[in-house]
Amino acid sequence: MLNFTFHNPTKIVFGTNAIERIDELLPADARVLILLGGGSARRNGTLGEVRAALGEREVQEFDGIEANPTYETLMRAVEQVRREKLDFLLGVGGGSVIDGSKFVAAAVPFEGDPWQIMLSHGAEVRHALPLASVLTLPATGSEMNCGSVITRHESKTKLAFLNPRVYPVFSILDPTKTYTLPARQIANGIVDAYVHIAEQYLTYPVYGRVQDRFAEGLMQTLIDIGPRCLNETENYELRANMMWVTTMALNGLIGAGVPHDWATHMLGHEITALHEIDHARTLAIVLPSMLQVRRQQKRAKVLQYADRVWQLRDGDEEQRIDQAIRRTAEFFESLGIPTRFSAYGLGTEVIEPLVEQLVAHGMTELGEHRDITPEISRRVYHGAL
Amino acid sequence: MLNFTFHNPTKIVFGTNAIERIDELLPADARVLILLGGGSARRNGTLGEVRAALGEREVQEFDGIEANPTYETLMRAVEQVRREKLDFLLGVGGGSVIDGSKFVAAAVPFEGDPWQIMLSHGAEVRHALPLASVLTLPATGSEMNCGSVITRHESKTKLAFLNPRVYPVFSILDPTKTYTLPARQIANGIVDAYVHIAEQYLTYPVYGRVQDRFAEGLMQTLIDIGPRCLNETENYELRANMMWVTTMALNGLIGAGVPHDWATHMLGHEITALHEIDHARTLAIVLPSMLQVRRQQKRAKVLQYADRVWQLRDGDEEQRIDQAIRRTAEFFESLGIPTRFSAYGLGTEVIEPLVEQLVAHGMTELGEHRDITPEISRRVYHGAL
Repeated sequence: MLNFTFHNPTKIVFGTNAIERIDELLPADARVLILLGGGSARRNGTLGEVRAALGEREVQEFDGIEANPTYETLMRAVEQVRREKLDFLLGVGGGSVIDGSKFVAAAVPFEGDPWQIMLSHGAEVRHALPLASVLTLPATGSEMNCGSVITRHESKTKLAFLNPRVYPVFSILDPTKTYTLPARQIANGIVDAYVHIAEQYLTYPVYGRVQDRFAEGLMQTLIDIGPRCLNETENYELRANMMWVTTMALNGLIGAGVPHDWATHMLGHEITALHEIDHARTLAIVLPSMLQVRRQQKRAKVLQYADRVWQLRDGDEEQRIDQAIRRTAEFFESLGIPTRFSAYGLGTEVIEPLVEQLVAHGMTELGEHRDITPEISRRVYHGAL
Repeated sequence: MLNFTFHNPTKIVFGTNAIERIDELLPADARVLILLGGGSARRNGTLGEVRAALGEREVQEFDGIEANPTYETLMRAVEQVRREKLDFLLGVGGGSVIDGSKFVAAAVPFEGDPWQIMLSHGAEVRHALPLASVLTLPATGSEMNCGSVITRHESKTKLAFLNPRVYPVFSILDPTKTYTLPARQIANGIVDAYVHIAEQYLTYPVYGRVQDRFAEGLMQTLIDIGPRCLNETENYELRANMMWVTTMALNGLIGAGVPHDWATHMLGHEITALHEIDHARTLAIVLPSMLQVRRQQKRAKVLQYADRVWQLRDGDEEQRIDQAIRRTAEFFESLGIPTRFSAYGLGTEVIEPLVEQLVAHGMTELGEHRDITPEISRRVYHGAL
């Protein structure tokens, strides 16, 4: 096990009617900005419940945070908070809204150009407004971590920042809030969480036995509930477990003390940037091919994955690795998520522009060994045609 | 899954040389009381490392916190902190030292008789000094929770309190600090953690799939490493995993959103009180018999335990339950921990006094269904003769 520090101060309030608890969780004199996405929280009544829980507090709203939240939009929220002297941010939505709220929290008190927050990957954040979230779309884990990904529209740049000052003070997780989500977003959420786990688990052995067992348990849970989660839209038990898995997949716990990969994410980001395919869907294209190309480097962990997650015990090692990769792709496909470029009408012509983008963004030494060169990335893309 | 709140703000610093990090974790002007147990930290050099990390800060020491920490001893520490105007507590030891430090933290600013902290089970704690820990004996999980068990020698009363103000600010977990522990303490720690997990897992199904997978993974890890942990005293990998399991077993995570039992602990406490058998060893006596007596009420979860933790798939349900209980007892025995009263020279004569003590302490409705009467407790004790 590698040395690590683990510290996650976010309070999780989980279950039915959890929104009512907001009143006791916020100072009575808080001046609140509610940050919102595309309007679903307004339409389906969640915003109304949140406003009711906030009672007599000063509350303003900020609408329109995009699926890939932009600096340009968020800076308008920063101006509103500064102008109106608001002091508490409450993101109501999915990962994009919560990521956006984190940027606003850090940008409001930031001295100088707030884009520097992104350029420094969060290192220059010295203060942040307190923020909290009401999660309506389980997927990214943003509700219980201190990371945020922001896009600058003007320069088409997508950057991430991390800073412990932007952990949500609390996050409200009510599984019934997922009942109205489209199946596509549920499927995306399941794949997003699955790949988050894979990035922290399918690397090389360091005998983090607890971390491995937890990662395997989360994957097994997604496999057990995935297809039913799509079809049984108001099954509380399934949605509750999906929500808790997605949070646990990226709250620092399974990643503490083990190596991380994240190459699948980097290769996927470029597909989203050039072809506007949903983030999770790009991960489903990249991961099976990545495991195939990296089967030697990841050998011991993929064999463990084959055994413990998929119970594959027949055949020789190469066969078990092949089977595990095929089962992974079949799982994604069973959720209606394609695992090949061809499903999107894309062919070999896309590969060189993607590799060029990787190089342009400095993504030339990826993976847990930092040895995935552009040439290897090209092979991964090629394997996913 | 049941509704729950999860909030654990303790920072864990895990790994070799983690003690050095104390300097950056503490305010430079902190006035520190180091709380110690029986003297091993002083003898084996851990105390010296801690003092070196504390540098020029004002540091005092308090020695002699017992294995079952007493109010009488701890009140002397309270007086020292008040008299010397110390403002930060650092427990260096195992669960008893950390539990004791929590009581001191709550008692120093307490207005009125500090025993009221215990009588109110923590409800009356409004303030506490900040405290932290350097864990040297992995077992109880106290390093990452807000619970504490204190004994009043004068009245032979043992009470627990819980309060979020006594979460350690940070805890230092360096697995090499376990190398000098006697085998008996390692074995006790493994059994203690195993039963902590069982109390939160072997109840009735609420479809907490994540919690179940995590509990099963922790149990499997203890089974995988247990006997080797005893024999390979300087195997870092094994001790690191043991340490992380014992912390995860009782930090609130696997217990969030699921029912809890704790009847095995209550029955075990009376054995310690009357026969001075180590806490963990009493749990090993009680648990197998408890599972046998409660096999109908716990049926679904014990069958799941048989399948997932012990891979028992042959025979009918009754046989698989019997096998799972037998394997549990054999696991404890493989660590040198007996699972019957007879191993301590005790027979039927002990049962009535134990049941009388349970009744005297109000332990008449125990377990996840609150339906374990003194009559059922009697059967559990009887089954462990």
